[in-house]
Amino acid sequence: MILRIEPLTAAAFSPFGDVLEAVGPPDTLINEGLCERFHDRARLDFGPQGRAGISIFRAQPRSLPLALELVERHPEGSQAFIPMTDDPFLVTVASDNEGVPTAVRAFRTAPGQGVNILRNTWHGVLTPLAGPGLFTVVDRIGTTPNLEAFRLVEPLVITD
Amino acid sequence: MILRIEPLTAAAFSPFGDVLEAVGPPDTLINEGLCERFHDRARLDFGPQGRAGISIFRAQPRSLPLALELVERHPEGSQAFIPMTDDPFLVTVASDNEGVPTAVRAFRTAPGQGVNILRNTWHGVLTPLAGPGLFTVVDRIGTTPNLEAFRLVEPLVITD
Repeated sequence: MILRIEPLTAAAFSPFGDVLEAVGPPDTLINEGLCERFHDRARLDFGPQGRAGISIFRAQPRSLPLALELVERHPEGSQAFIPMTDDPFLVTVASDNEGVPTAVRAFRTAPGQGVNILRNTWHGVLTPLAGPGLFTVVDRIGTTPNLEAFRLVEPLVITD
Repeated sequence: MILRIEPLTAAAFSPFGDVLEAVGPPDTLINEGLCERFHDRARLDFGPQGRAGISIFRAQPRSLPLALELVERHPEGSQAFIPMTDDPFLVTVASDNEGVPTAVRAFRTAPGQGVNILRNTWHGVLTPLAGPGLFTVVDRIGTTPNLEAFRLVEPLVITD
């Protein structure tokens, strides 16, 4: 089955998470007017026993079309992916139907966009479309289990 | 007075904060071997009444030489700056001598480097050296005062 890629917008992505970007008016001007602050734009959630952490991910770039076979979710925490280059990357997410991912959607970011994926939301793994695939990740640090994986019965082919 | 810029290294920056970068061996390989995870690399601290938040900063680019007149610190929380492009930026930090910033140092990042500045550490404001000056910032969200500014008696001229 073919899944077409959509452009990433805050409205389309809202059920799954937050788009981290500088759009619209800033919340405040700081540093004597030299800097716009778009304040507190992610619905962070690290569960009852977790805390926030910052990690660096370096992922191998992928090319399109791409076969999506596996999605995962983190029951204990949200996960934000912030690209450290201005290269677009692919974000796949899905709705949940009683523990089964359904209605997968694929989004391509624009330069200057990161994402925060909500706690317990099905998503594909980090998918850069160009090297070096370098991201800062803000997610939950903790000791209790936080990964649920699901192998798709019928792989999806993601393409433009 | 002239202050020369140093390259940013984890060792040199350690008293002031953490360098967020993918260097050395990763802590784990995830996503079926496709992604390296450099795990939990920032000394985050959001104070007794704060929480983590993600904001976007867009700062006007500056050029060198640059006159540093003002430094600030955040008594209630650490502050991480993650560039969303691979352009270098300038990081200035200072030691503290009984409430007075002293021994200012200036670092230029390399592509793929972000920083986390420790709670209550003197630093200059966000200083991109190229446009668009776009950063994701992980800092403390809270309602209690969290900004102390200090105007340098003798401005420093920062240059290569």
